Amino acid sequence: MENFVFHNPTKLVFGNGTVEKIGEFLKKDGIKRVLMLYGGGSIKKNGVYEKVVRSLVENGIEKVEVSGVRPNPVLSKVHEAIRIAKYNQVEAILAVGGGSVVDSAKAVAAGYYYDGDIWDAFIGRYNVKKALPLYVVLTMSATGTEMNGNGVVTNEVTQEKFYFGSKHVYPVVSIVDPTTQYSLPANQVVYGAIDAISHVMEYYFDVAGSDLLDRIDEGIIKTLIEATEIILKEPENYEARANFCLATTLALNGLTGMGTTGGDWSSHELEHAISALNPDVAHGAGLAIVFPAWMTYVKDKISHKLVKFDKNIFGLDREVKPEEVIDKLKCWYKKIGAPTTLKEVGFAKEDIEKLTEIANKHAPFGTVKELTKEDIRKIYEIAYE
Amino acid sequence: MENFVFHNPTKLVFGNGTVEKIGEFLKKDGIKRVLMLYGGGSIKKNGVYEKVVRSLVENGIEKVEVSGVRPNPVLSKVHEAIRIAKYNQVEAILAVGGGSVVDSAKAVAAGYYYDGDIWDAFIGRYNVKKALPLYVVLTMSATGTEMNGNGVVTNEVTQEKFYFGSKHVYPVVSIVDPTTQYSLPANQVVYGAIDAISHVMEYYFDVAGSDLLDRIDEGIIKTLIEATEIILKEPENYEARANFCLATTLALNGLTGMGTTGGDWSSHELEHAISALNPDVAHGAGLAIVFPAWMTYVKDKISHKLVKFDKNIFGLDREVKPEEVIDKLKCWYKKIGAPTTLKEVGFAKEDIEKLTEIANKHAPFGTVKELTKEDIRKIYEIAYE
Repeated sequence: MENFVFHNPTKLVFGNGTVEKIGEFLKKDGIKRVLMLYGGGSIKKNGVYEKVVRSLVENGIEKVEVSGVRPNPVLSKVHEAIRIAKYNQVEAILAVGGGSVVDSAKAVAAGYYYDGDIWDAFIGRYNVKKALPLYVVLTMSATGTEMNGNGVVTNEVTQEKFYFGSKHVYPVVSIVDPTTQYSLPANQVVYGAIDAISHVMEYYFDVAGSDLLDRIDEGIIKTLIEATEIILKEPENYEARANFCLATTLALNGLTGMGTTGGDWSSHELEHAISALNPDVAHGAGLAIVFPAWMTYVKDKISHKLVKFDKNIFGLDREVKPEEVIDKLKCWYKKIGAPTTLKEVGFAKEDIEKLTEIANKHAPFGTVKELTKEDIRKIYEIAYE
Repeated sequence: MENFVFHNPTKLVFGNGTVEKIGEFLKKDGIKRVLMLYGGGSIKKNGVYEKVVRSLVENGIEKVEVSGVRPNPVLSKVHEAIRIAKYNQVEAILAVGGGSVVDSAKAVAAGYYYDGDIWDAFIGRYNVKKALPLYVVLTMSATGTEMNGNGVVTNEVTQEKFYFGSKHVYPVVSIVDPTTQYSLPANQVVYGAIDAISHVMEYYFDVAGSDLLDRIDEGIIKTLIEATEIILKEPENYEARANFCLATTLALNGLTGMGTTGGDWSSHELEHAISALNPDVAHGAGLAIVFPAWMTYVKDKISHKLVKFDKNIFGLDREVKPEEVIDKLKCWYKKIGAPTTLKEVGFAKEDIEKLTEIANKHAPFGTVKELTKEDIRKIYEIAYE
């Protein structure tokens, strides 16, 4: 087990009927004016918008709204929200939505106190010193952003999908009410599951770790697999939703990283190039394509872990070969309706070179195997069809 | 799954060579004078005292020492430390030791700002409003106090062993260096393991819960069982120590309580009477005696959970009867050298009535079955021999 520091100050408020409490939490913290950031308007259809606004009104909190944050959120929207936040001198950011909204909100919170372009924080030119307090009402569980200090945004101009991290952008309060997710389309559940499973796997297949965290990791992944299958059949099964939501939060709140070297994260780097080049590909879909390809490429280094993964998650007594485990994972991804090749989501063979170029900007990366440009190209080739 | 709020602001600093950093953390927080609280002097034998003092000196931090905190810590020592803390106007409490020291330090931190007797916080007469910041260097993993807001102290005058809880006494920083525990006597490892396993079981056998947390609970308990057996043979096995230490922390830092009704805690109530009446009985020893007795008494209500516990922790394919699972747990406790009856630790049959009287002061308690005085007596009778 590697040394580590764990510090997660976010207050997680979890359960049925908790959305209505957002105003109380803001009021208790003395906040009177917020920038409310949300996406394409699904929160107006599922009743979340109304509950949040009523709670704000009841607690005497003013709001300025910025909507239209899209999946694979873009930097221009972050810039717009920062301008509006500054102009209105808001005291906090209130993100109401899924990972894209929360990630954008983190950039807005940090950008509020920065005179330059907040993209600097994504490219290592600015180390965030201060941020507005961030409050979250999560309406789609997937990325774990509701309980960590990271955000991912795409710069449309440079076609780069980069992340930044800061202790200053951990949400102060995150409300997760599983019932708000009853109306999510099936594919968002599927991609959310794959995203969270991939987060755990980035740590699980790290070169370091411990028996304790392996067991916790396996418990989270197994729960996600089971809960996803139930939700796809019964979208309003509360227990399955609650297990799913909590599992996605714990997948990336620091717990699963304890005692590792920090995770491998190659598959995430490789995915970011995919959805930067084609923003219509959901992050979870990209991960379903690229993670098994990465596993195949490095399988000799993780073979013992693949066998353990199979035994404790898929639960067969018979010992299997590493490549069988990768096939099983791909089979499960296919079963729940996810793509597993680049070709399926519309990439042509020529795109492999473009993807390689984009991903290579961050190379070398990875701890299991440090990937060079040549490795990256080969993994995309495996992922192609 | 029940609704819950999780908020744990403690910074956990974990690993080999971390004790030496305590002064840096204090300095970074602007602290210049601490009350250093410790126990019977084992920290002078194992080198921890020297490392802490050197780190304080190097970072320009003054200290006032109060030593002599004993296992099953007593209120009079807390009073003494509060007096000395006030007289010296310290800015923080630095606890260096195991659960007894940290629990006492929490009472001291809270008592510093309270004009009355801090025992009031234990008996519900005072709701802690403020406390000195608390820093911890843990030298014995067991109670989980290094990452929660609870403390247990015994009032020698009234023979009551009560707990108090407050968000103000979560440690700011807790340093856990598994190597400091290499020299612990075997029985402290054994009682620490039983204490932590019992914490998880209080939640595991709660009336509510979730598949996800059941799996995490099972992972923690299984790890504690395996790590304990390794440590008893190889006290300097770092991986086993690290797994053990982290498992005990996670057993009671709020994680295992997620989605439960808050745990049953009857066994803890019943145990507190045991070690209040006879402070020579370690908390873990008392739990080894009383938890299986409680399980036996309520077995019809937890039979499905006992079977699950057996399958996922002891790992047999054959389905067993609930009483067999309780026997297996007792067998394991015996195997590692713990007592499993009141008689073994010197209680006479007449003491059952005394224990019942002490425990009954908090009755009724328990969520699986709300225990009355009559239930309490019967459980002690089962625990007797």
